[in-house]
Amino acid sequence: MGKLVCVGLGPGDPDLMSVRAHRLVGAARHVAYFRKKGRMGQARRIVEGLLPDGVTEYPMDYPVTVEIPFTDPEYNRLLSEFYDDWAERLAMLCQGQDVIVLCEGDPFFYGSFMHLYTRLKDRIPVEVVPGITGMSGCWTATGAPITWGDDVLTVAMATLPEADLAARIAQTDALVVMKIGRNLPKLTRALQSAGKFGDAWIVTHGTMDNQTVRRLDEVTGEVPYFSIVVVHGQGRRP
Amino acid sequence: MGKLVCVGLGPGDPDLMSVRAHRLVGAARHVAYFRKKGRMGQARRIVEGLLPDGVTEYPMDYPVTVEIPFTDPEYNRLLSEFYDDWAERLAMLCQGQDVIVLCEGDPFFYGSFMHLYTRLKDRIPVEVVPGITGMSGCWTATGAPITWGDDVLTVAMATLPEADLAARIAQTDALVVMKIGRNLPKLTRALQSAGKFGDAWIVTHGTMDNQTVRRLDEVTGEVPYFSIVVVHGQGRRP
Ligand SMILES: C[S@@+](CC[C@H](N)C(=O)[O-])C[C@H]1O[C@@H](n2cnc3c(N)ncnc32)[C@H](O)[C@@H]1O
Ligand SMILES: C[S@@+](CC[C@H](N)C(=O)[O-])C[C@H]1O[C@@H](n2cnc3c(N)ncnc32)[C@H](O)[C@@H]1O
Repeated sequence: MGKLVCVGLGPGDPDLMSVRAHRLVGAARHVAYFRKKGRMGQARRIVEGLLPDGVTEYPMDYPVTVEIPFTDPEYNRLLSEFYDDWAERLAMLCQGQDVIVLCEGDPFFYGSFMHLYTRLKDRIPVEVVPGITGMSGCWTATGAPITWGDDVLTVAMATLPEADLAARIAQTDALVVMKIGRNLPKLTRALQSAGKFGDAWIVTHGTMDNQTVRRLDEVTGEVPYFSIVVVHGQGRRP
Repeated sequence: MGKLVCVGLGPGDPDLMSVRAHRLVGAARHVAYFRKKGRMGQARRIVEGLLPDGVTEYPMDYPVTVEIPFTDPEYNRLLSEFYDDWAERLAMLCQGQDVIVLCEGDPFFYGSFMHLYTRLKDRIPVEVVPGITGMSGCWTATGAPITWGDDVLTVAMATLPEADLAARIAQTDALVVMKIGRNLPKLTRALQSAGKFGDAWIVTHGTMDNQTVRRLDEVTGEVPYFSIVVVHGQGRRP
């Protein structure tokens, strides 16, 4: 009986994966990872050049990403089936050997692996290796600390309704917003209505080769899926 | 002219430091780290056995930790002087060579190094290596994901006034509370008044050899400085 090990790979720069992640990836025999159909997948990209010869790869292609709104019951049905299916396949695979699941960032922080985890944790041995989150990579890239003293940090998804976003932004000291993409116009309005648009920074592809760091008010046009908006806290600093 | 490199070491388990951190620590000639006077210091403990022979160590002993309330102007004055002083010494030291500052967790997330950073960033070259936060280590240790779907995560310090804490706890989906120590009774009341005491977990010394993971309502007595309370989000899960 093998086990399933989900390895957090950090924000993107392979040098930022943990020593344990690096060792597990370098000794892997079977690796699975999520990706958008037709793409390489961010987790897979991080380990490029690190997988040993002869490894077997199991790309898990999402049946849907942004083609259907996530409020549509069909979205839920398709994803639920997809996770059931892969949970089954990974459980079988683990009968004979260890399987590594590659995840960007920290797996238990808004990660897709969590949906396999809940399905499998009582059936087979599952281990999770935490990783540096995308947001840590991104705020470090801005060159300014995110939280000081008693600052409250709020992490919110740009998929929230505009009024919710605006209220959260108004109430917090420090802010991180993820899952931006096509929600950027809505997020912009929410930041404006909370009076914080001018203080917001956006990092795209944080710690990767194509990283960009800009003030949000300098952005024109679309932003990629790997984008994080931050507003730095201004708390106590002796 | 050398540079100052602040290295995030992750939550405690040396195996969870990044590949880059591991390489920098293993090649260090001069390392500085914060500690409470008379203690080894958590950052220093993480690298035990990894520092090369002949390294020079610069322990930076806090002039005060909990002996004076942080609301006392004297607290601020003492710390401000302490950071000024060490900023000066590190700037001098960096004239001739690189100096590594060791920090637990992620340096830009409520870290003491931030106070040296603001004093030095325009005077000498400073680099920061992000790390796995203590909270990632702790929620992974609970064996349950922290945030799902559109969950809002709030990170708050237990040093906040009780009413503020209670309001923050009531409003969020997922919660992380840090800097607990002697604020545990206040945090307990705030969680109770927000109706979430029964859902709270506490992890002490997350990922370290002496890690404990308990439901908060099972705790009697004091908790150590390295304690984090989490309430897991319950968001969308296909
Ligand atoms: C499904 S969440 C996964 C988060 C991941 N588990 C973590 O710990 O960072 C995906 C979102 O993470 C954010 N993200 C993760 N890594 C990033 C990076 N390196 N640069 C910018 N955004 C990133 C983006 O906002 C993206 O929409
Ligand atoms: C000054 S903050 C430093 C946070 C650190 N920079 C980080 O990224 O986690 C100190 C607080 O972090 C929390 N903490 C950090 N690491 C921890 C661990 N391994 N276990 C429990 N608590 C931890 C505790 O709440 C502690 O009071």
